[in-house]
Amino acid sequence: MSLLVTGSIGIDTIETPFGKRDDVLGGSAVYFSYAASFFTPVRLVGVVGDDAPDGLFNAFDGHDVNMDGLEVRQGSKTFRWHGSYVKSLNEAVTVEVDLNVLAERAPKIPPHFLDSNYVFLANTHPALQQQLLASLKSPSLVVADTMNFWIQSERPELLKLLRNIHGLVLNDGEARLLTDKKNLIEAGREVLKLGPKFVVIKKGEHGCLLCSDRDTFVLPAFPADLVIDPTGAGDSFAGGMMGYLSTQGSFNSATIKRALAFGTVVASFAIADFSLAGLQAISRDTIDERFSDFKQSMSF
Amino acid sequence: MSLLVTGSIGIDTIETPFGKRDDVLGGSAVYFSYAASFFTPVRLVGVVGDDAPDGLFNAFDGHDVNMDGLEVRQGSKTFRWHGSYVKSLNEAVTVEVDLNVLAERAPKIPPHFLDSNYVFLANTHPALQQQLLASLKSPSLVVADTMNFWIQSERPELLKLLRNIHGLVLNDGEARLLTDKKNLIEAGREVLKLGPKFVVIKKGEHGCLLCSDRDTFVLPAFPADLVIDPTGAGDSFAGGMMGYLSTQGSFNSATIKRALAFGTVVASFAIADFSLAGLQAISRDTIDERFSDFKQSMSF
Repeated sequence: MSLLVTGSIGIDTIETPFGKRDDVLGGSAVYFSYAASFFTPVRLVGVVGDDAPDGLFNAFDGHDVNMDGLEVRQGSKTFRWHGSYVKSLNEAVTVEVDLNVLAERAPKIPPHFLDSNYVFLANTHPALQQQLLASLKSPSLVVADTMNFWIQSERPELLKLLRNIHGLVLNDGEARLLTDKKNLIEAGREVLKLGPKFVVIKKGEHGCLLCSDRDTFVLPAFPADLVIDPTGAGDSFAGGMMGYLSTQGSFNSATIKRALAFGTVVASFAIADFSLAGLQAISRDTIDERFSDFKQSMSF
Repeated sequence: MSLLVTGSIGIDTIETPFGKRDDVLGGSAVYFSYAASFFTPVRLVGVVGDDAPDGLFNAFDGHDVNMDGLEVRQGSKTFRWHGSYVKSLNEAVTVEVDLNVLAERAPKIPPHFLDSNYVFLANTHPALQQQLLASLKSPSLVVADTMNFWIQSERPELLKLLRNIHGLVLNDGEARLLTDKKNLIEAGREVLKLGPKFVVIKKGEHGCLLCSDRDTFVLPAFPADLVIDPTGAGDSFAGGMMGYLSTQGSFNSATIKRALAFGTVVASFAIADFSLAGLQAISRDTIDERFSDFKQSMSF
């Protein structure tokens, strides 16, 4: 049950109403890996510069995250993001972003990772996502994330990618931008016409919506009264979802729904503290307990 | 199981991306009554002018809505509202509003309505809500709605009302305005400190949140791909909720959760057409079918 993720590894500076953290570990692949590793071993593929973020090499201690695919590129600089949630915890304002090493060539997938069955292409340039995907043997489930920037500036590349993946994860604003549909269910159905078998639209504090040929359903977010730092919520959600899916043989409606619920629960822990601290504070048991509460609260 | 509602009866002009309807029947008490009457007999108390809206007197044909509490006041004009959802289906822009008869004295509750057990005080001036409530004998469940206008301009009166009701229903923006809390769960808990035993925060397309001493839970909206006219969604939700509650002896968590789910389902029909047409097109069986689908879609 090999789950491979490729995406960003970054040095974040985060401001929220609860404080500021400078130069903390971040990036889509980092949040995803930590979240998914509660469920299944994870293979991480990513690249940093010679200023690799503090704490990267022991961030996953005690978790089965294989870092053979981590490239430390000499002479390059790590991706940096400075975001602020001071105005609203629901939307990050990018104060500064330096793509740095992310603007260079993609990292190489190690030969012993090429047989990965489950693949998550975290948010990056869709041409890179295609290139990485093309090098894999025959994954049985490929899910990608994307963002408004690529939808606007690299639409042809993104459309090519969409024809070659099974699932797409994106947020509500991005779904509307991609499809030009305001109603999210309509937007979801439009995405299906572009290739994916299913699409998960993340709605932040309002939960998520899944559309597939067979299903349309919504899950609320886990009711959280303390949101300290929403960074990585979406990637943690995807990590929980893919982590769980990777342990299942089939992808029927019930399995996918449970996967979304696990993603929801994992994300609810991720936002309770800065950087990875929210996830680092919990165990699989904590997740299972909250999953059970969530399931119970949804039954009537 | 006598359910009494008092609130507005109006003549609406509605614009949405799907068209415009002039001078159609509307008002909180009208939507509420129709919605609740799928579950239980309803006693309607309200007042119109001598220009009573077309179709008011046969709007509830086939439904058990007792209109003995409807006052047609000679020399007065009916409440009028002109709203537009052209810009966004999630938020009405008020183009014009004429309180007319609503700015006068409250309608009188008929003597044979004074023993009502279940009471819904739909949105109106909180002093009027108190006055109406005070005249009732000993209702076992009193729930009120309110709006930003009263929160801002009549806070002392509203706070008095809150000390005398069991439940409050309001939307997310109103909950934030009332409590000065951005996080909706925090806002819900603040409302409880003001008096009510439970509060339901309506989040439009994102569903609803319930807070009580015992529970905090969220329900998504029923995934609707066609929203024609959102007018009355909140009142239909409240009608479905209170209609169902009125048929139950107790108000435990499970009962309240099912009540919210029925409210959610009824509201999903209300928005599928202009004015009352969405509700007039369905039966209790249609509601029960969708309730069952909704329940199923929430289970994982």
